[in-house]
Amino acid sequence: MADNTDFELYGFWRTSATYRVRVALNLKGLTAREHDINLDKGEQLSADFLAINPLGAIPALIESGQPPMTESLAILEFIDETHPAPPLLPADPRGRARVRSIAQMLAADTHPLIVPRVRKYLTEVGGFDQAAVKAWMTHWFGTGLAAVERRLSSEAATGAFCHGDAVTIADICLGSITVLARVNKLALPPLPTIDRIMARCEAMEAFAKADPMQQAGAPKA
Amino acid sequence: MADNTDFELYGFWRTSATYRVRVALNLKGLTAREHDINLDKGEQLSADFLAINPLGAIPALIESGQPPMTESLAILEFIDETHPAPPLLPADPRGRARVRSIAQMLAADTHPLIVPRVRKYLTEVGGFDQAAVKAWMTHWFGTGLAAVERRLSSEAATGAFCHGDAVTIADICLGSITVLARVNKLALPPLPTIDRIMARCEAMEAFAKADPMQQAGAPKA
Repeated sequence: MADNTDFELYGFWRTSATYRVRVALNLKGLTAREHDINLDKGEQLSADFLAINPLGAIPALIESGQPPMTESLAILEFIDETHPAPPLLPADPRGRARVRSIAQMLAADTHPLIVPRVRKYLTEVGGFDQAAVKAWMTHWFGTGLAAVERRLSSEAATGAFCHGDAVTIADICLGSITVLARVNKLALPPLPTIDRIMARCEAMEAFAKADPMQQAGAPKA
Repeated sequence: MADNTDFELYGFWRTSATYRVRVALNLKGLTAREHDINLDKGEQLSADFLAINPLGAIPALIESGQPPMTESLAILEFIDETHPAPPLLPADPRGRARVRSIAQMLAADTHPLIVPRVRKYLTEVGGFDQAAVKAWMTHWFGTGLAAVERRLSSEAATGAFCHGDAVTIADICLGSITVLARVNKLALPPLPTIDRIMARCEAMEAFAKADPMQQAGAPKA
């Protein structure tokens, strides 16, 4: 099996960005051997991992003999360009712009605000206690998801999924935030359109298999 | 002149994301009539602007009769797909992945941490004073730029610009952070490779004309 694996994926069971890469690989029928880099233990900065990815960043996707690729959205575009079926972006430039815009609202405007290094700064430098950190996470997830809900519920291009009736990187990014909100038990505003789309996504094996709680490093239920 | 303008661009003199769109339009020889949405006065949430972009988000790029496009990186990809010369991404998928990864390190991992709504939360809810906000901005700009410097100074694909010898969206995102650091007078670590690349970019009219201090809304020197 090892020799038939398409990629090595360095990630962590819980992280939103690793989830995105997992879903995209699953949708394309690609395989990756996943290596757990425990962010809670700081393993992303260990000498062993820095020898693999000098940036100390996960997710890192490696194809044999090639330098690591980083940043989940860049990896998703690479996977889509090199393995075009099924497509993860619509064919028309305006549709692509809408999908990428929704993806950025989640992966750029929302997710980077709650990653471990930011929470560490807020507690160690900013004087936030655990309740204040949870309020911070709840605020930014709620703000980001409510803005996406407003788009999805009002824009004609929304279909069974975020854009029409096929899965795109917008759905992948949406799932990456909603599953992380669930892992962190965050109280969110009502999100009926997002809930509808996510129920559809999570019924697909590609999404279900990528769920944080299904990964090797996840805590036992 | 008005009737020959390609786009309407809603932005603000100072913002990093508006700068990115300006540079891309300039590089492609496209024109936009720019409308100043004053973030300091909350104009992005005014009824007038919400009638134009219900998301209340800048930059918003509008082509006559079409819905607004948002999120700077989605807009840059749209501009590049619909106006291919000169290209803002390399031709090979691995090169494109590297460029998009560097762009995301700046536009996703760095910039969203210091936008007005985050600074507002830190002061109004988090108890940060102005010195603490400045330390926050300095920390995240320094962290993000130092990580990019480490890549650019060590990876063989770096050339006169971030990737080889042609301008890409990585250079545009790099410029968007360095000009904002300058506007905010942030003390940064030594960044010799970034300084070299940025000197080259800023010698180009497309970058120089996009500089925040050159815009109509900028404070007088």
